Amino acid sequence: MSYVAPVKDMLFAINELAGLSEVNALPGCEDATAETVEAVLEENAKFAGEVVAPLNWEGDKAPSYWQDGQVFTTKGFKEAFKLFGEAGWQGVQHPQEFGGQGLPKLVATPCIEMLNSASISFALCPLLTDGAIEALLTAGSDEQKAIYLENLISGKWTGTMNLTEPQAGSDLAMVRSRAVPQGDGTYKVFGTKIFITYGEHDMAENIVHLVLARTPDAPEGVKGISLFIVPKFLVNADGSLGARNDAHCVSIEHKLGIKASPTAVLQFGDHGGAIGTLVGEENRGLEYMFIMMNAARFGVGMQGIGVAERAYQKAVQYARDRVQSRDLAGSAGPVSIIHHPDVRRMLMSMRAQTEGARSLAYVAAALSDVAHHHENPETRKANQTVYEYLVPIVKGWSTEMSLDVTSTGVQVHGGMGFIEETGAAQHYRDAKILTIYEGTTAIQANDLVGRKTVRDGGATAKALIAQVRAVEAELAAVGTPDMLAIQAQLALGSAALEDVVNFVVANVKQDIKAVFAGSVLYLKLAGIVLGGWQMARAALIAHKKLQAGEGDAAFYQAKIVTARFFADHILSAAQGLRSAIVSGSAGVLGLPVDQF
Amino acid sequence: MSYVAPVKDMLFAINELAGLSEVNALPGCEDATAETVEAVLEENAKFAGEVVAPLNWEGDKAPSYWQDGQVFTTKGFKEAFKLFGEAGWQGVQHPQEFGGQGLPKLVATPCIEMLNSASISFALCPLLTDGAIEALLTAGSDEQKAIYLENLISGKWTGTMNLTEPQAGSDLAMVRSRAVPQGDGTYKVFGTKIFITYGEHDMAENIVHLVLARTPDAPEGVKGISLFIVPKFLVNADGSLGARNDAHCVSIEHKLGIKASPTAVLQFGDHGGAIGTLVGEENRGLEYMFIMMNAARFGVGMQGIGVAERAYQKAVQYARDRVQSRDLAGSAGPVSIIHHPDVRRMLMSMRAQTEGARSLAYVAAALSDVAHHHENPETRKANQTVYEYLVPIVKGWSTEMSLDVTSTGVQVHGGMGFIEETGAAQHYRDAKILTIYEGTTAIQANDLVGRKTVRDGGATAKALIAQVRAVEAELAAVGTPDMLAIQAQLALGSAALEDVVNFVVANVKQDIKAVFAGSVLYLKLAGIVLGGWQMARAALIAHKKLQAGEGDAAFYQAKIVTARFFADHILSAAQGLRSAIVSGSAGVLGLPVDQF
Repeated sequence: MSYVAPVKDMLFAINELAGLSEVNALPGCEDATAETVEAVLEENAKFAGEVVAPLNWEGDKAPSYWQDGQVFTTKGFKEAFKLFGEAGWQGVQHPQEFGGQGLPKLVATPCIEMLNSASISFALCPLLTDGAIEALLTAGSDEQKAIYLENLISGKWTGTMNLTEPQAGSDLAMVRSRAVPQGDGTYKVFGTKIFITYGEHDMAENIVHLVLARTPDAPEGVKGISLFIVPKFLVNADGSLGARNDAHCVSIEHKLGIKASPTAVLQFGDHGGAIGTLVGEENRGLEYMFIMMNAARFGVGMQGIGVAERAYQKAVQYARDRVQSRDLAGSAGPVSIIHHPDVRRMLMSMRAQTEGARSLAYVAAALSDVAHHHENPETRKANQTVYEYLVPIVKGWSTEMSLDVTSTGVQVHGGMGFIEETGAAQHYRDAKILTIYEGTTAIQANDLVGRKTVRDGGATAKALIAQVRAVEAELAAVGTPDMLAIQAQLALGSAALEDVVNFVVANVKQDIKAVFAGSVLYLKLAGIVLGGWQMARAALIAHKKLQAGEGDAAFYQAKIVTARFFADHILSAAQGLRSAIVSGSAGVLGLPVDQF
Repeated sequence: MSYVAPVKDMLFAINELAGLSEVNALPGCEDATAETVEAVLEENAKFAGEVVAPLNWEGDKAPSYWQDGQVFTTKGFKEAFKLFGEAGWQGVQHPQEFGGQGLPKLVATPCIEMLNSASISFALCPLLTDGAIEALLTAGSDEQKAIYLENLISGKWTGTMNLTEPQAGSDLAMVRSRAVPQGDGTYKVFGTKIFITYGEHDMAENIVHLVLARTPDAPEGVKGISLFIVPKFLVNADGSLGARNDAHCVSIEHKLGIKASPTAVLQFGDHGGAIGTLVGEENRGLEYMFIMMNAARFGVGMQGIGVAERAYQKAVQYARDRVQSRDLAGSAGPVSIIHHPDVRRMLMSMRAQTEGARSLAYVAAALSDVAHHHENPETRKANQTVYEYLVPIVKGWSTEMSLDVTSTGVQVHGGMGFIEETGAAQHYRDAKILTIYEGTTAIQANDLVGRKTVRDGGATAKALIAQVRAVEAELAAVGTPDMLAIQAQLALGSAALEDVVNFVVANVKQDIKAVFAGSVLYLKLAGIVLGGWQMARAALIAHKKLQAGEGDAAFYQAKIVTARFFADHILSAAQGLRSAIVSGSAGVLGLPVDQF
């Protein structure tokens, strides 16, 4: 059940693909030197591997449980979360002004990956807290910041996102919770919120609920939703905890996975009203919530990568240990199954998809850093645009691939994979939520099509495709068999993606349903092409290092093989996806509802 | 949680695709008239839907449990199994001579599908019993047949397959269990068997274990394995039950899914030796076991189709009921999510894959009937050859697609899918064993490559491809946009499959690992091309019926749309698979073991 963070691959992606030196040169990122980043990663790897990873299976065996309104987390979680806060891990990417380390997202991102490899259930608490911190940093008043941020960043308190109601899942226009102004600057909040991750627990002194609700005169739909801070315990002017607020956990869910992470049903205001304060302005709640959501969506993408890495490591270990059947090429006796070609194929598929998604996510994180810190506002804007294009892909593709990777991980284990005590099945169960929460893959795909592609006429997508093509030219110039094989698939992939972007832009007005019938497939296509692009860049860099005789030759050779696998086995799906998108809407939409 | 068997689609596949009338014309199949078959299916549908389906979730909530060597099944299972036996459902395909109904496999196959849609956990007991019956029918002595068959066929007793040992999973050469002749015609059996489905339970009076073991002078490897009957209770000459045999269940597994089905660890001979009798001749056990295995493998393929159908029905129901977000084409208020294009795409993907796999499996069942009953031995042999080519595909592809379909089923439910009480997650968990037991997908693929393709130089595969091409010509001749779209993808698919068959045959000698690196992908490619072939045939038949104004127009129109979806969304993966097989071995095999 052990986990050893792939720090070497992470540093390669950070330094060589995402360009840490450029990020380090940005104003406010001066602390993120290569040495510091390596030290942070090593230290975080130790914490994730030694403190958190052993708790993961415990959390599955003995999940959080509810009793009389209280939630008790798995033994060891509370202590680990205390250590997490004390070591400063909640604050990696948050401002030093409020006690954080003020490091770039490019550094926080591998830390989030590691924590999720160690335990998604555990990592969810900091992930949601990160979202609350982001929202308050952007939209909170100075007073709110003063009251909440330091305690959230230190891990003394935690945060939650309260969007979903029984009738309002993906469709926030249907939110019904109410917030009634009390005339003293506070509101009384009433309503039921469901699926609230860490909505109640015993790991922190206070829980800061960020809640979407409507004020009495708010307009209908999403334009009438406001955001409120509703803490579990009211906070006195001196920062000490006051009375218990009227926000109560009435039950937690019995789930397929991430069982240690309590998923709460919260009742606000059943006993007179929960006291809340408005964040920012009335009716702009959705906008602020999207700040949390975008951070959280990227984070969920990292969860996909984290669980995929963990499942890969576990499968490799089993494949090394399990002896069964002779080698196909002839051996005296049975060999460990890692020598069998199909086991090898499965492991490579897990590895290549994980590395591809990691590379793309880290590159996206660096874009976000440039977008936040660059001196030139145009550069900031340009990078933000590309980052925003990539967010639904990092979320959607990394989590979809994690379903495949964790499923393959069980398969590598054969019959033992189906036995819960083996632990492979837990990753399969845990991963299943990732394509659903913080917006399903379809919601990500809507975002990719609507806001990220159609709105600019496909310009951002095409600028990325141009970058992919530049890499294709480099691959062709190097001209080794591996580089040419990668080039061939990348060229098919970029052509397919361009066709699809053109199809989306050209047809969205006259045949919107035909376009959205292929939206998830477009997202997957963009994922494999852009992930393939990063793997191709990695192969080129590895080739150069090998030519120059620099660094760890075995690592670079492995990177080239993995990129080759990605091209031949993952990226090669591009043409099929293209055809399903461009020609496939008749089959999607042709059946009358009564024939299902 | 309800299940309504898709009898209409089943009858379409039976009558139109598999050709019931030809099967009905075979000697010994005279009873299987269209009317009888329809009546059998309707009756079986009622039993599966009303008696068994409601038990499925109960079995997940309150699984079988072990206590002091005994296993107690979920409440209701025992009673349902009694009804099952009394109604004659165990005997559908078994000889009338021993109390069966003597109906063709083509009729038994939909019955097996329905029972598995209702509950895989429940259906496993009859499935294993079927295997034991097949083995005894083929290799048992007259005395063994007389003692065991009638009780197995009536459901009074049940059967098990005992292959796996802790060190011998896929590799049966490593079986160590011993059988020592006692000089009186019996043997004493010693050893540990694991993963024994229904190895112990309370649903029948006796359990007939079929056990692989080695006699004292047996040669090493798979050529030294014999098959023994080791009943839980010894059977007296008059057929009454005698002493408890020394075969004991020491534990059952804690599994990801199929929790109601007890998976036993059995100890044979710990208290002096378990009394067994030899089946057939010594050292031919593997051969006999393969009779059970082949029947069971086909049956597991049906399990994949069964659970996929159930997951599809559940997802459709939820998509009809759940109201969320407006229609993309504009609606006043929110609509049920079945109107959203991506939900529609997911449902069509579930439906098309299920129907495609069903069609192929039923066609295979009819081939098996011809192979058993036709008067002409050459016709028998020719049909047997094609059937045997299809068995690993029916097993491997139908179960792999069931992972995708059940995963999509959860996704359609959004957050509710992750809540166990919803029931969608159970199908996802249950399905996961199907690609593992009775030979993993890789084992099926080995069979497909080795025994089924290389041995005859690809002749069987190419004969099937020729049949696919004939359908392509028919599609082109009809020439409607749907038929042309299907034809285009089918042509790409058959070309890809032909390339791959040529690649396999040409390279297996000089580069065996490169061929086996793509074996599972070859199996998947064969699945989608041959499933696509049957869907294309279905579309042609539907087109003709519509032209002629015969039958249920809505059903035939839906069939064409579903076939179109299959072509554009499922079959369109063929080229990518081809390229991964033909060019992909470098990426699969290039990494040194120490770099994983």
